[in-house]
Amino acid sequence: MKRIAFALVAVAAVAGVAAYIGPAYGQANGEAAPIFVKKIPPGYRDWRLISVAHEEGNLNSIGAVLGNDVAIKAYREGKLPFPDGTIIAALHYSHVASDENNKVFGQSQSFVAGPQTNIQFMVKDSKKYAATGGWGFATFKDGKPADDASMKSCFPCHNQAARDLVFTRYAP
Amino acid sequence: MKRIAFALVAVAAVAGVAAYIGPAYGQANGEAAPIFVKKIPPGYRDWRLISVAHEEGNLNSIGAVLGNDVAIKAYREGKLPFPDGTIIAALHYSHVASDENNKVFGQSQSFVAGPQTNIQFMVKDSKKYAATGGWGFATFKDGKPADDASMKSCFPCHNQAARDLVFTRYAP
Repeated sequence: MKRIAFALVAVAAVAGVAAYIGPAYGQANGEAAPIFVKKIPPGYRDWRLISVAHEEGNLNSIGAVLGNDVAIKAYREGKLPFPDGTIIAALHYSHVASDENNKVFGQSQSFVAGPQTNIQFMVKDSKKYAATGGWGFATFKDGKPADDASMKSCFPCHNQAARDLVFTRYAP
Repeated sequence: MKRIAFALVAVAAVAGVAAYIGPAYGQANGEAAPIFVKKIPPGYRDWRLISVAHEEGNLNSIGAVLGNDVAIKAYREGKLPFPDGTIIAALHYSHVASDENNKVFGQSQSFVAGPQTNIQFMVKDSKKYAATGGWGFATFKDGKPADDASMKSCFPCHNQAARDLVFTRYAP
């Protein structure tokens, strides 16, 4: 779902990392430049569940979407746009058949989380990420941020999502 | 994955609910009777993620498996059997195509959590649930425990799982 990304322009400050973004940075052509998140928000694996998702096709992923406390509160209160401080994490895994489970079930029906494919984040900071709808985007593979080229499509795609650039709805 | 259930014999105490299980209860034929969990463990929706799963076929579900603190600690430490106090929750939703997402993506690939189909729990108490491998099983639909007949298959099926009756592995 959130498997999108776009061109790195500046290092973003996520959690306790100070980054100076020069005022003229990336504005050579008169447009504010997108800023990308390059540090993994600490503690994200302990965050609460927003929902789950499955992508077919090339992605072939199954994922859990988690939110920090600000995100969960906003979701539960139906608050839009999401407030600054919201961080949404999408943990993606290969969508793999479970031979172990299917053997017990007696038929092929069970798919589970295989190897992790990537982790993606959306970080809300309406000032810092003003050029991209108030959201900073991030993709990490094996703990490393994705290359700039692969990040090009994050904002244009998420900008089409109906609820403040966020596709995922809260599951009860 | 954990879409299994079996016959109710006695009301189980889960969280703050005292239940008296008579010593001769269900032992008419000399076998200890299974005991089922009939109260939803409070706060489960705030628990941390263990993994995600997708079941095809009649179930057609996508689910998140969450664990209480005891469960998460045991999983992360690779501790087997799970200690008493472990509770594992499986939140199941209909596996539905997202027209909203697919419209943006330009192709049919996205599946999300539709209406909730059920919530299932496994509660570890090696004494109370001795007759079923130390686990109490529960299925709730619309907040109500499933009927006794539908609970018959929980233990026999989970008893075939390799890791202390639990199918779900921890996702990183």
